[in-house]
Amino acid sequence: MNGNKKFSDMSVDFASIIRDKKLGRALTKEQLRIFADGAGSGSVPDYQLASLLMAIRLNGMNAEEITQLTLAMRDSGDVADLSSIKGVTADKHSTGGVGDNTSFIVAPLVSACGAPVAMMSGRGLGHTGGTLDKLEAINGFNAYPSIEEFIKQINDIGVAIIGQSGEIAPADKKLYALRDVTSTVDSIPLIASSIMSKKLASGTKSLVLDVKTGSGAMMQRLDDSIALAQTMVDICKLSGVKVTAVVTDMNQPLGTYVGNGLELKQSIDVLKGESKGALYELSLLLGSYMLVQSEVAKDIDEARKALINALSSGAGLAKLKQMIEYQGGDSRVCDDTSLLPQAKVVREIKADTVGYVESMDTVELGLIAQSLGAGRQKIDDDVDYSVGYILPVRIGDYIDRDTTLCVIHARSESDAIACENRIRKAIKTSPTPVKPPSLVYAVITEQGVLRYN
Amino acid sequence: MNGNKKFSDMSVDFASIIRDKKLGRALTKEQLRIFADGAGSGSVPDYQLASLLMAIRLNGMNAEEITQLTLAMRDSGDVADLSSIKGVTADKHSTGGVGDNTSFIVAPLVSACGAPVAMMSGRGLGHTGGTLDKLEAINGFNAYPSIEEFIKQINDIGVAIIGQSGEIAPADKKLYALRDVTSTVDSIPLIASSIMSKKLASGTKSLVLDVKTGSGAMMQRLDDSIALAQTMVDICKLSGVKVTAVVTDMNQPLGTYVGNGLELKQSIDVLKGESKGALYELSLLLGSYMLVQSEVAKDIDEARKALINALSSGAGLAKLKQMIEYQGGDSRVCDDTSLLPQAKVVREIKADTVGYVESMDTVELGLIAQSLGAGRQKIDDDVDYSVGYILPVRIGDYIDRDTTLCVIHARSESDAIACENRIRKAIKTSPTPVKPPSLVYAVITEQGVLRYN
Repeated sequence: MNGNKKFSDMSVDFASIIRDKKLGRALTKEQLRIFADGAGSGSVPDYQLASLLMAIRLNGMNAEEITQLTLAMRDSGDVADLSSIKGVTADKHSTGGVGDNTSFIVAPLVSACGAPVAMMSGRGLGHTGGTLDKLEAINGFNAYPSIEEFIKQINDIGVAIIGQSGEIAPADKKLYALRDVTSTVDSIPLIASSIMSKKLASGTKSLVLDVKTGSGAMMQRLDDSIALAQTMVDICKLSGVKVTAVVTDMNQPLGTYVGNGLELKQSIDVLKGESKGALYELSLLLGSYMLVQSEVAKDIDEARKALINALSSGAGLAKLKQMIEYQGGDSRVCDDTSLLPQAKVVREIKADTVGYVESMDTVELGLIAQSLGAGRQKIDDDVDYSVGYILPVRIGDYIDRDTTLCVIHARSESDAIACENRIRKAIKTSPTPVKPPSLVYAVITEQGVLRYN
Repeated sequence: MNGNKKFSDMSVDFASIIRDKKLGRALTKEQLRIFADGAGSGSVPDYQLASLLMAIRLNGMNAEEITQLTLAMRDSGDVADLSSIKGVTADKHSTGGVGDNTSFIVAPLVSACGAPVAMMSGRGLGHTGGTLDKLEAINGFNAYPSIEEFIKQINDIGVAIIGQSGEIAPADKKLYALRDVTSTVDSIPLIASSIMSKKLASGTKSLVLDVKTGSGAMMQRLDDSIALAQTMVDICKLSGVKVTAVVTDMNQPLGTYVGNGLELKQSIDVLKGESKGALYELSLLLGSYMLVQSEVAKDIDEARKALINALSSGAGLAKLKQMIEYQGGDSRVCDDTSLLPQAKVVREIKADTVGYVESMDTVELGLIAQSLGAGRQKIDDDVDYSVGYILPVRIGDYIDRDTTLCVIHARSESDAIACENRIRKAIKTSPTPVKPPSLVYAVITEQGVLRYN
């Protein structure tokens, strides 16, 4: 035991920051910089960071504090400078869900309509998929060009989707790991600053946020999702980034295809005009706000029309092909999706009950895809691009023993059987009709919250 | 950065304990054992302990939780077994103050009245003095006999005052150091469990607690001091230890002598019947409760009379001499206090203002004694037994330029001058009469709180 010796006098100043938050005071910009820099550099010990995280979790933060923390966390690492891109760059960010592959639809369509799309995306973790993993299902695709190449590509062809390289928000990396083991994950100020510090490091000038709500979302309750969306909008507003947040349904997978290659295929199908539904609708909505923020369309209606035109003319699909080629990928997948990685075992399963689909355990559906090999348990796991499943049924659908419940794409028969059993359990039916969930619950802009309920 | 890798899955269970407290739930006995054992053994990482400490600071604990935490912290180290001592052993504990040397008066008097006094004491730190340091002003005094010798001494002569040896409450040692740097010192559950885990490790069967309140106390506000006293009484009650807590004044030093040898001298003067005042009065009060709890007196009045008899008959002083001899010290100091260490420089200073003493900055008065060499900044600093000061003035006293404000005992002239300046500043006077503070504000027993105001 050398408890008394271990903690040095250097810690005294940081203790005063903890004290202020403990007493419910707002922290100053300077105090928040010390917090973020100390977390990023490792100069503040973990136990002090942990104590402050709990004080923040229990005593909260106001919008100004959250923004200053976000900016300080952003500045703890590399920040991209996109000022040499002409126009108002557009990006979108989703808080993560299952079967959510709007990026491959939105990015080319918005670009085809004339807005510069500079999208920096992430990898999947836990039950949620990641845009980069899906793109890497394409043979040869380079998800990590340099920032200079990224900027040149956008100036050349108007669109790029890449992974963030360099050291992005090391303060967040440290705090994220600490939160996980100190029971401080469930804090809106900490969630919002974590997401936004990384997003603002991408240097975008405008952003559309897709905040999920429901059984497969980070926040299950609508009010929490709206509060998170509001907080992220406040951060953008105070940081000078144009922003709109939409709060959308994640009580079931967004698209009906789940898995890396499968989701990419469904995106291509949407761009070909061969797939509609929630994935298509949400893509148009997100794209519309992006076009308005990039000052290419004067309002949402005009933007939506432009996007539909770009889709039906084939300009969207052509733009996706162009982007894949520019980034070294085999763009023939856009014409022939059978060139995407194919699973060894494809197994169609029928429903074993009769009734209306009442609910889906969407986290479990994501974890099922992960267990097939499509996702990661740890950040450095490999993913299998070929596996996943097609789940054509939706909440509210009537199903019987003739209905195809699911088509499983697996590496082995035993994987497929395990998947089948779990999928059956994750989907509940009711003998009486069930109302399908809404797709969009709220839109939050700098002006306020508009609820759709 | 390897934030994600650093925190292992082993932490998952402890995170659920943090979560429960974060959500305001009462922790179970089992959870509190994991907390204390993990802190004591070092198996739970500091960042998780820190997060839980902040959750406890902000969400509190009920009496049952505080007791279970205290017992678990006690059991993280050595616990003395005093069951072979005949009778109900008596001990007292003070939360710490300036000029508080009741132990040398209370222990021999209570013992002389027939109760076995088994006192385990601590050293001074910061602005407060420590009983052991004062005893060690006596040449040859052994403050660390073994537990077996301690028990034998009490069975032989009825009294012993020693320091706690062995590994006492290592969980507290760890948490105490962490609290200091994570802004979680000011938590009554944590203060009470820290004090009581060490005190209960001494194995006493009854305890009188002296909880200080005022400008020189851990708690400045009376309500906080009463809440702390109440919490410590609850712990004893639930632990099966007889207890009474008194909440007493620390708006000025208790005795008028401050410093190790000087305080010992004043105690001897009290036992000789040559000194009265607050030190004498509080000693009688504490001793009375000890005698009643040890079942030697039937009530406080009878106990007080017995103590006064033991004092006037010289039995108290004789008992102190016997104890000092038993522990190897030079007991001649009881007859001739000039045998105690004497300071090189003794300097009397007169008041430089006229008026009524209104207030004293008692923490500062303690720190002044520390700066003379009487106290410690760090736990392993040495102390000088000879230095300190006599401060005959009390709040409410009228003083003028003929009044002796203070007699400083210092190692050098420059120390004395520095001390003089600081003492003058620490004492405020008023042109109008000032009411002296009460000595006793409240008595808390298992039956409830009795306020004296």
